[in-house]
Amino acid sequence: MQLSQRRIKAAIFGGSGYGGSELLRILLFHPHVDVVLVTANEHADKRVADVHRNLLGLTDLSFVKQPETIDGVLDDVDCVFFALPHGQAMSLVPNIPPQIKVIDLSGDFRLRDQSLFESHYKQPHTAMETQAGFVYGLTETNREAVRHARLIANPGCFATATLLGLAPLVANGLLAGRVIVDAKTGSSGSGAKAAANTHHPQRMTSFYAYKPFTHQHVPEIEQELAHVGDWTNELIFMTHSLPVARGIFASIYVELKRELDQSNLHQLFAEYYHDSFFVRLVNGSPDINWVKTTNFCDLGFAVRGKQAVVFSAIDNLVKGAAGQAVQNMNLMFGLDEKTGLILAGTNP
Amino acid sequence: MQLSQRRIKAAIFGGSGYGGSELLRILLFHPHVDVVLVTANEHADKRVADVHRNLLGLTDLSFVKQPETIDGVLDDVDCVFFALPHGQAMSLVPNIPPQIKVIDLSGDFRLRDQSLFESHYKQPHTAMETQAGFVYGLTETNREAVRHARLIANPGCFATATLLGLAPLVANGLLAGRVIVDAKTGSSGSGAKAAANTHHPQRMTSFYAYKPFTHQHVPEIEQELAHVGDWTNELIFMTHSLPVARGIFASIYVELKRELDQSNLHQLFAEYYHDSFFVRLVNGSPDINWVKTTNFCDLGFAVRGKQAVVFSAIDNLVKGAAGQAVQNMNLMFGLDEKTGLILAGTNP
Amino acid sequence: MQLSQRRIKAAIFGGSGYGGSELLRILLFHPHVDVVLVTANEHADKRVADVHRNLLGLTDLSFVKQPETIDGVLDDVDCVFFALPHGQAMSLVPNIPPQIKVIDLSGDFRLRDQSLFESHYKQPHTAMETQAGFVYGLTETNREAVRHARLIANPGCFATATLLGLAPLVANGLLAGRVIVDAKTGSSGSGAKAAANTHHPQRMTSFYAYKPFTHQHVPEIEQELAHVGDWTNELIFMTHSLPVARGIFASIYVELKRELDQSNLHQLFAEYYHDSFFVRLVNGSPDINWVKTTNFCDLGFAVRGKQAVVFSAIDNLVKGAAGQAVQNMNLMFGLDEKTGLILAGTNP
Amino acid sequence: MQLSQRRIKAAIFGGSGYGGSELLRILLFHPHVDVVLVTANEHADKRVADVHRNLLGLTDLSFVKQPETIDGVLDDVDCVFFALPHGQAMSLVPNIPPQIKVIDLSGDFRLRDQSLFESHYKQPHTAMETQAGFVYGLTETNREAVRHARLIANPGCFATATLLGLAPLVANGLLAGRVIVDAKTGSSGSGAKAAANTHHPQRMTSFYAYKPFTHQHVPEIEQELAHVGDWTNELIFMTHSLPVARGIFASIYVELKRELDQSNLHQLFAEYYHDSFFVRLVNGSPDINWVKTTNFCDLGFAVRGKQAVVFSAIDNLVKGAAGQAVQNMNLMFGLDEKTGLILAGTNP
Repeated sequence: MQLSQRRIKAAIFGGSGYGGSELLRILLFHPHVDVVLVTANEHADKRVADVHRNLLGLTDLSFVKQPETIDGVLDDVDCVFFALPHGQAMSLVPNIPPQIKVIDLSGDFRLRDQSLFESHYKQPHTAMETQAGFVYGLTETNREAVRHARLIANPGCFATATLLGLAPLVANGLLAGRVIVDAKTGSSGSGAKAAANTHHPQRMTSFYAYKPFTHQHVPEIEQELAHVGDWTNELIFMTHSLPVARGIFASIYVELKRELDQSNLHQLFAEYYHDSFFVRLVNGSPDINWVKTTNFCDLGFAVRGKQAVVFSAIDNLVKGAAGQAVQNMNLMFGLDEKTGLILAGTNP
Repeated sequence: MQLSQRRIKAAIFGGSGYGGSELLRILLFHPHVDVVLVTANEHADKRVADVHRNLLGLTDLSFVKQPETIDGVLDDVDCVFFALPHGQAMSLVPNIPPQIKVIDLSGDFRLRDQSLFESHYKQPHTAMETQAGFVYGLTETNREAVRHARLIANPGCFATATLLGLAPLVANGLLAGRVIVDAKTGSSGSGAKAAANTHHPQRMTSFYAYKPFTHQHVPEIEQELAHVGDWTNELIFMTHSLPVARGIFASIYVELKRELDQSNLHQLFAEYYHDSFFVRLVNGSPDINWVKTTNFCDLGFAVRGKQAVVFSAIDNLVKGAAGQAVQNMNLMFGLDEKTGLILAGTNP
Repeated sequence: MQLSQRRIKAAIFGGSGYGGSELLRILLFHPHVDVVLVTANEHADKRVADVHRNLLGLTDLSFVKQPETIDGVLDDVDCVFFALPHGQAMSLVPNIPPQIKVIDLSGDFRLRDQSLFESHYKQPHTAMETQAGFVYGLTETNREAVRHARLIANPGCFATATLLGLAPLVANGLLAGRVIVDAKTGSSGSGAKAAANTHHPQRMTSFYAYKPFTHQHVPEIEQELAHVGDWTNELIFMTHSLPVARGIFASIYVELKRELDQSNLHQLFAEYYHDSFFVRLVNGSPDINWVKTTNFCDLGFAVRGKQAVVFSAIDNLVKGAAGQAVQNMNLMFGLDEKTGLILAGTNP
Repeated sequence: MQLSQRRIKAAIFGGSGYGGSELLRILLFHPHVDVVLVTANEHADKRVADVHRNLLGLTDLSFVKQPETIDGVLDDVDCVFFALPHGQAMSLVPNIPPQIKVIDLSGDFRLRDQSLFESHYKQPHTAMETQAGFVYGLTETNREAVRHARLIANPGCFATATLLGLAPLVANGLLAGRVIVDAKTGSSGSGAKAAANTHHPQRMTSFYAYKPFTHQHVPEIEQELAHVGDWTNELIFMTHSLPVARGIFASIYVELKRELDQSNLHQLFAEYYHDSFFVRLVNGSPDINWVKTTNFCDLGFAVRGKQAVVFSAIDNLVKGAAGQAVQNMNLMFGLDEKTGLILAGTNP
């Protein structure tokens, strides 16, 4: 594609949730993208700005009902984003015409092992052949593959925060013993629909653990760690709920094969991420406050002898979902991965 | 009843909502009450402490399904609290045996004018004859009537905050012109069920107005002001949503018939509430922070010439619901109104 | 200035507070601006990104100590923003060379009446001659004057929200009787320094009124209303503290000279703001959630006969401070006022 | 002491902080206590209810300046609570007359190893002889010693949550390998004074780690674990800041010497805490929401093979400070440990 000639025409399937909301916030202002189609069954025919009221005055788009069949609907489209609930993309993607690129934000195509998918997502997988063509879209570890991919499985939010904190250590073969990830997420991770666990009167003063040992992001973390290096460690992964809207913070406890000090660690990460604009290494601890609404992943460290802790902070909806999706799209279309993604956070 | 002889046996219809939750928190530790029955259809047969997990270790009660008929169910009961959604108590109360006292926390029996009820609650009223026997349970303005009442219509939360701020002025015939009440409530005012307007990711950073001019507490405010004094003013009542769990704050703008300074106002209110332990007059503005979880109503004032503002702060679930209900029960059974209600707030 | 030839070189005096923080967030990404100087006494010589950690990776600027004298410091500068505490700009602005444009975010130059300034800001004014050259920078009411101004007094945050809600009514001579403004602000309105009233354990569950009748934004509101139309009404202005970081919500209660319905009001406002991109008229109530981090002012209405309420919502740091400052800068330099200000909000 | 004869006269040194605030909230309503003295230097001579405005109407006490010397001041006092900043009690306690019982909420007397104290608290210890007489007041592990103690060192908040989660495992000799504690605290843990890390605009959307590996509660945890059982494991202790006012949540990762399932663990803990009213074992995860403002510690478990996680939730100011202090006082004076401590939490 020659950018001087034409712009990327993008479609979003599932535009009314928080993933769709953030895709719209980014793509509507992307210098090389036109959003030509946004679906949303429940809100079909409503104006986008009546649902995402932050976009009032910024777009005239309306939601359309999700088409029964793909035929003819995507004739002019270059790239489709799927931001649907788990289990829906797998029946649609196989019918997408081959000249169209696909980025799926759900868990449908992340796992190469069908049985792992089915045990974690509690449903049969009906498109494993299509899955074989997918690239796991953690941009920082798979940049070259992403550039040449037609199909991207965008990582889960917890997986993104965890993998970015562990990849340099695994790639350098530094880990001994079990790895413990104590991960915490804001309430937007539960989606845009009201539910008991996001009921404001209770959630605003809550902190609790959920899905111990069994979160569905565990298998994609292990799969990708094995891709990045020689991963044979035991992973203990624990998810908790934070009383904020946005943000994931992972405290990652590892045992190193040899003693490293903080500057060694910093150096190691700096080298691994030397061409990764969206990974920032901070002194001390990162804070979800400084990454909220941005595509950054902030990483910090603490070390005592062979015991090290990596702290990883992202915005679950941006680097953990829509932002990373656009970062991947940029690469797939030959653009600088930062294009349209310099979303400065705010203080406060 | 002679307290030395026996304790008050209380039943709660509708124990799983926030009104029921707070009734339980108070009544389970009330020195003269035994809670003998708590209903909750959705949670029938669950232990109370599995729903209101704050009460774990503090009660062995279980919820029972709401009985089809009252017959026989209340043989041993002295007092029934109704904490059901609007519209349900009116079909139950007429069948309550006459020796049992009733306190209804819903809006069913507050309004003496059937058409006002029907226009504000969007449903027919089927028990206006029973309504005629109800006393409006704003303790501070109706203390003597409450003492002798068998049936109490417990005031709405907004009505409580507003009436306590206006009653002394109306009783003293001081108001000229329209009265503007800018009222704000925490999210627990929407009840215990998750809903779009209490979805945490959005609510935690929200403030907005709702039901302009039309809130269903308006007619009970006007009815009670007419009872307290000579009320003919225009009332402009506006409700807003606050991003806190608990608390109502009303800013009440009035025009006085004559100039008063702050100490005059303080004096006037102090006299009106001289025997009202739960009304506290503060310097400057009250703060919902200082009344949360308590049965207090904190009032403060600002004056400029004939323009005065009364600030009123309560906990919507306590003084605005369950606390006031127990305050009324205390009086109805010959107890000190403070019994079981010295719920000290916390700092922070 | 010909934009094809060169970019605007901007200096910020007072870059470490929240006003400075937001100026940097906007100006660093403005397509026609280079930030060449940022002062901050307390943080002198620190990197900007070490104080505003949201900007890590996005700027290499460091803070410089505020210069004792202006001489020579601003040789290359086209525009100076003052985001200093009240009282500091007035000693600096008179020495700014005349070819440099000035935008002051403090209250120093907003009031044309020296005695009003001195009574509200509790300090003498030492530069009233310079004040005479200032234009009050509420873009929507003063667009033409702003275009030709060299010196801009940027409005206060409460004043912005209030004036945008009242200007169309005053301009059309519609107001009878007193006007009551019940205004609420988030905690960032108190600035970046920790203080008792912004101590998190208490603030997160607080709502209270402060500075009743006496807020320093009152005189600038009245001054500008008299500029917009024939303003002789009594203004009752009450400020409250909200437990959110960002946002101002004003509920503005007015009595109309003649009955209007909601669509009349909408029409009237739509006409008044027909060329004002940043004013959005909404159905029902606005919500600070939808304007946070943006330069929008959302307005909504409720009416009953001659009683009307205008609801106005802004982000206090953007439309109420830094965003409006840049909007004014754009006009002063012949740019579209939206340039660099399409800051889409987020959902959630 | 014979309770039928007289009540406990209590003094509080340091009544204006959050520890003092909660001591007052509890002791003022304790059926066997009279608070006869409360000191607060900064607020000397102010009414307690002007500082802790939640107590307005509930006490007439005023703060007194902290006396230069103890002589004569405590003649009538039975029990002194110290809720002063670290380092102050050590100069006062040695002079307390021997018939007076002492409960110190600071870290001054918790550690038996002077060098550990001095390295963690960065100050010399001047009263190690007095320290030798202190009992570590974790009621659940030291109940008998507390009963007979004159001097109590009340545990730190993080230490309380962690120790209650680990004690049964250490006492039963079940732990293999390193133990990782990922602990999170609300903002009230930083005290009542405003500071940068508790500035509301930032804190409300923050989550970050602090003091990695070096928190001053680590040595008291290790000291007490060695007292409870055979503790030789490595402890990795990490503290984080939560955007809530109250609550500590600790996720405690352990490796068991043999496989246990969830019901084994539950059984083991139930036995260890069979006479500990304030420890509640919950299904799934505890939530700080259900313990806020109470003296409960809620514990839950997750297990996979030999990998186990204990989740521990307390209110940092109650079970983590003032509540536990009163629990200890009750035992020291021969009362039921629950007396005055049935502080039911709230929903919401």
